[in-house]
Amino acid sequence: MKKYTVGLDFGTGSMRALLVDLASGKELGYKECKYPHGVMESTLPDGTRLGPEWSLQHPEDYLFALTETVPNLLREHGVLREEVVGLGIDFTSSTVIPLDATLTPLCLMKEYSGNPHAYAKLWKHHSAQYCAELITDLAKKTEQAWLVRNGGRISPELAFPKLLQVALEAPELFDRVEYFMDAGDYMVSLLTGEVSRSTCIAGYKYCWSKEEGFPDEGFLNGLAPDFGSKVLKKLRGKFFAPGASAGTLTKEFAEKLGLSEKTAVSAAVIDAHAAIPAIGQIGENQMLMILGTSGCHHLLSKSYRQVEGVFGIVEDGVIEGFYCYEAGQSGMGDHFEWLLRNCVGKDVEDRACAKGMSVLNYLAQLASEKRAGETGLLCLDWFNGNRSVLNDCDLSGVILGLTLSTQPQDLYRALVEAVAFGTRKIIESFENSGVAVDALFATGTMSKSSFVMQTFADVTGKRIRIVASQNGPALGAAIFAASASGTFSLAEATKRLGKLQENSYDPDPKNSALYDKLYGEYCLLHDYFGREENPVLKTLKSLRK
Amino acid sequence: MKKYTVGLDFGTGSMRALLVDLASGKELGYKECKYPHGVMESTLPDGTRLGPEWSLQHPEDYLFALTETVPNLLREHGVLREEVVGLGIDFTSSTVIPLDATLTPLCLMKEYSGNPHAYAKLWKHHSAQYCAELITDLAKKTEQAWLVRNGGRISPELAFPKLLQVALEAPELFDRVEYFMDAGDYMVSLLTGEVSRSTCIAGYKYCWSKEEGFPDEGFLNGLAPDFGSKVLKKLRGKFFAPGASAGTLTKEFAEKLGLSEKTAVSAAVIDAHAAIPAIGQIGENQMLMILGTSGCHHLLSKSYRQVEGVFGIVEDGVIEGFYCYEAGQSGMGDHFEWLLRNCVGKDVEDRACAKGMSVLNYLAQLASEKRAGETGLLCLDWFNGNRSVLNDCDLSGVILGLTLSTQPQDLYRALVEAVAFGTRKIIESFENSGVAVDALFATGTMSKSSFVMQTFADVTGKRIRIVASQNGPALGAAIFAASASGTFSLAEATKRLGKLQENSYDPDPKNSALYDKLYGEYCLLHDYFGREENPVLKTLKSLRK
Repeated sequence: MKKYTVGLDFGTGSMRALLVDLASGKELGYKECKYPHGVMESTLPDGTRLGPEWSLQHPEDYLFALTETVPNLLREHGVLREEVVGLGIDFTSSTVIPLDATLTPLCLMKEYSGNPHAYAKLWKHHSAQYCAELITDLAKKTEQAWLVRNGGRISPELAFPKLLQVALEAPELFDRVEYFMDAGDYMVSLLTGEVSRSTCIAGYKYCWSKEEGFPDEGFLNGLAPDFGSKVLKKLRGKFFAPGASAGTLTKEFAEKLGLSEKTAVSAAVIDAHAAIPAIGQIGENQMLMILGTSGCHHLLSKSYRQVEGVFGIVEDGVIEGFYCYEAGQSGMGDHFEWLLRNCVGKDVEDRACAKGMSVLNYLAQLASEKRAGETGLLCLDWFNGNRSVLNDCDLSGVILGLTLSTQPQDLYRALVEAVAFGTRKIIESFENSGVAVDALFATGTMSKSSFVMQTFADVTGKRIRIVASQNGPALGAAIFAASASGTFSLAEATKRLGKLQENSYDPDPKNSALYDKLYGEYCLLHDYFGREENPVLKTLKSLRK
Repeated sequence: MKKYTVGLDFGTGSMRALLVDLASGKELGYKECKYPHGVMESTLPDGTRLGPEWSLQHPEDYLFALTETVPNLLREHGVLREEVVGLGIDFTSSTVIPLDATLTPLCLMKEYSGNPHAYAKLWKHHSAQYCAELITDLAKKTEQAWLVRNGGRISPELAFPKLLQVALEAPELFDRVEYFMDAGDYMVSLLTGEVSRSTCIAGYKYCWSKEEGFPDEGFLNGLAPDFGSKVLKKLRGKFFAPGASAGTLTKEFAEKLGLSEKTAVSAAVIDAHAAIPAIGQIGENQMLMILGTSGCHHLLSKSYRQVEGVFGIVEDGVIEGFYCYEAGQSGMGDHFEWLLRNCVGKDVEDRACAKGMSVLNYLAQLASEKRAGETGLLCLDWFNGNRSVLNDCDLSGVILGLTLSTQPQDLYRALVEAVAFGTRKIIESFENSGVAVDALFATGTMSKSSFVMQTFADVTGKRIRIVASQNGPALGAAIFAASASGTFSLAEATKRLGKLQENSYDPDPKNSALYDKLYGEYCLLHDYFGREENPVLKTLKSLRK
C-alpha cells in the first residue's frame, strides 16, 4: 500500500496543505486557502469596534481552510483515504481560543458574538501589554524559574497575558470558559475528539516545562483573585510532543476530509518550529534560521545554559532528547517590504520591469555589484524593535553614513547586512554562553535570495545550507505526521523526508574580514543605543505619543 | 531722468540679470541664461579627460550669458542706455581663472586649450585637497593669524590650494600666467578695463585682510620654491569694497551691452553674500540665512570674536563698518533633492499629481499635519558633510527612530527639523562666543516654504522674516550698483531697494518646548558622532574606498 501524510501549515493569513509520499519523500502537491475573515484589527464581523492593538481571528476560518484544501488535494492526486496514514499540524502560537465543554468557540454562541474576548486572540494581539507587565513584575519579585527560560520578561506575545486580560476585562465570559486552547491544540483536539496539548506550544508560550508544568496556582492567584485556581483547570489536557500521536481522526472529521478513522494526528507544533526536521538531520548544535517577515533561530542542544536574549528553552520542545533554544529577530523581511514601499521611485520600478525582474531582485542584483563596505552605510535592524538579544520593542532602526549619492540599492544592501549582523549577534550570544553553533541552516522567503544568503555566510563566517522544500513548515508537519503514524521513527522520518539544496553558501574570507570590521562598529552602536548608554531611541518613541 | 541699475547674478549653472528702477525700488524684469559648457567634470571641450574631483568652467560662458541677457532685458523694457547708471556683479567665488596680460583666459589660446589648468577652476573643484592640506599644515606650524579667521583649516574651496595646484602640476603654464583672477574680479576688470579686486572675494577666499593683505611671501615660498614671490605678483590689482565703483564701462562693453560709457561698475561681491542688503536694513547682530542647495549664514557685527565653526570673518567684507561673519551648512536643500530621488514611490507621485501639487509641497503638507516629535525620527543633517560648526567633510548623515510605519513625509519632516537643528547649532556657536544673534532673515529656495520656515522659527525660538525678492542676490547686486553709481549711499540704497515680506514666522511656544528636547538629543549625537567620541562615520567613509 502507498503511504502518504499531509502537513497542514496554519499561518497568520492563510493555511497551506502539503501532500508527501513517504516512500519516495516527494512533495506531491500543495493547496493554499486564505482565511475569509483574515486578521481582525478594527472591527468584529458584526461591526463591533476593537480597541487599539487588538488582533483577533475567527476560529471558523481554520475549519473552512481545512475542508477547502484537504479533500481537493487528495482527490486531485488520486490518493485513497486509507493511504493517508497521518496528519501533522503546525500553527501560529499564543493564538488563544476560549471554548466551552464541547470545544465550541464562545464566539459562535449568539450571546458572545459581539464580545471581542470570545474570539481567538492572535499571537500579535498587543493590548494585553499591561497584563504582561503585571506578570513580569510579580515573577521578578517572586523569582520564578520559568521567567529566566523566557528571557527575563513576559511578552504580550505569550499566552498568560491574554488569559489574564480575559479574567480582568471580561470576568463573566472568563468563568464561562471550559477550556482555553491554543489554536494548534484546538485543531488537534477537534480532529481527534480528545483534549490534548502540545509540549511545544506549552513550553514556548505557556511558561510550561516537563518538570514543573505551568506556573503554580499560588503565583497566578497573586495576579488576580482566584485567577490561578480557575485558569489552571481551563488549561487541563493530556500532553504530547510533536511527532507523537495525539489520537486518530473522529468519524465526523474522517468523513469531512475524505480520510480514514485510522489516520493518526500528530501533536501540534508551532509554525516557527515546524521546519526543524525539514533539514533532514537532527544533530546537536545545529541552528535553523527561519527567515521570513521576522526571523526565528532554533538551536538544538543536549545541555541547558542561560543565554542572553533567548526567550524559550524547552526540553523535548520540538525534538525529543534535545533542548530546543529559541531566539529571533522581530524584523527581518519586513525591512525590505518597508524599503519597497518607501524608498523605491518610479525609475527603479521601470528599470526592474524592463529587465523582467521583481524590484527586490533588481535591487539585489545592483547591490551585489558593490563590494562589502562600499555603500558606506551601516544600519541597526530594529525597525520592528529588537527581540534577541535585547528583548526591547521600544528600540527602532538607525541608518548611518548617508550621503547625497546614497541609492536604494545601497539601502537595500545595508539592510541585508544589518539583519545578518543581528543574526551574528544571536549566534555569538549562544557561543559566549558555552553553547556551540556548529552548523547553520536556513529556510523562509529570504533564504531564496542567493545574495542574502551569501551575505549571511560572509557576515557570520559560517557555511549555510538551505532547506530544499518551498514549504519547510508544512514539510516538517508532514514529517511529524509520519512519525505519529508509526511508519518511521522521528529520526528516520527526518532523514528520509527532509532535504537540503545541493549547493551551500560558504564565507568569502575577504568579505568576512571586512564584515568583521563593520560588525565591530555594529556592536558598538548596538550597545550604545540598545543598552541605555544613550536611550535616545526610547525618548523618540515616547515623544511620538 | 529715470535711473536704473542691473544686478548680474553669476551662479554655478547660469547667470541671472535683474533690472531695478531706483525711484520706485521695483524689480522691472529678469532674464536668465544657462552656461553653454555648464560645469565640466569629466572632459574638456576637446575631449581631454579630467581626473577625479576636477570641476572646471569655460570663461567664455560668462561673456556669452552677459551679452545674451543684458541687451535684451533693456530692449524689452524700453530702457535707454544712459538711464542705466550702474552694473552690480555677484559671482560664485574661489572660481579662479588664469589670464595673460590682456586679461585673456589662457584656455582661449590654442596651445593651452587642451590643458585643464588653463580653465576656470570652479569653487567646488576638489582635486587640490592635498594642496589645502599642505597649506593648513604649514599655517598651523607657523601660526598664521589668517588661519584662525578661516576656521582653523584651509578648505579646497578656497583659492590658494588651486593656485598652488597650478604651480605644482603645471609649472610652465603657471609661469605664463600674468594674472590669476577670481571670476567676479575678472568680469569687473574686463568691463572697466582696469585690474581691480573685491575686498569681499579676497577676504573670504584668499586669506586676505585689510590690515595684513595676502599671506606673506615668506610663508608662501615655504609651500613651493618661489611660489610666493611669483603668485603675489599675479594677484596684483586695486582693491574695492562692494558698493564702491571700480570704474565705468569700456567703450567696447558699453557697445556690446547697449549701455553708456558712464555706467558705473560696482566691485564684485560673492554670490552667497550678495543678498545681505536685499533685506532692506543694515544692523548689528542681524543674521541672513541663505537657504538653497546648501546653507549660508551671514552675521554683521561691530566686534571681532573667534567663533567655532565660522570660516570667514572679514572686516568691511560686505558692508563697510561691519565685520561680516560667514558660517554655513554644506547640506540644506540637497537633502530634499535626495529624498525626492530615493524615497518617493510612484503612489506618492500620483497622489501629489492628483492634487496638482509638486511632490515636495505635497510631502510638506502631509508633514505639517503631524505634531513636533510625532514622526519618532531624528536626523543628523550631514548628507554632504558638515561645514559649521565641525568643519568636517568626512561626516555623513544619520537617521534614527525608523520603524515599519515610517513614511516619506516623516523622513521629509525629520530632515527639515535636522537642517533647522543645524542652523540652531550655528546660532548658539555665535552666542556662546559672545556674538549676539538678534534678528533672523532668510532667502533662497527653502525660504519659500512656510512649513520649512515655521519649523526654523520653532526650532531656533526666533522670529524669522523673509526677503521679498525672488532674486535676493541679483537684487543685492543691483543695490551695490546703485551705491557705486553715486545715486545713493549704500545704506540709503539698501533701505530704498531692499524689502521683506509682510508676514513673519514666529515661534510656537509649544513646538519650541518640544524641539528643545529633540535638539538636546541632536546635540548629544552631534558630539558623539561629530567630535570623534565614536568616529564610525569616518570609518565608514574610509571603508568605501
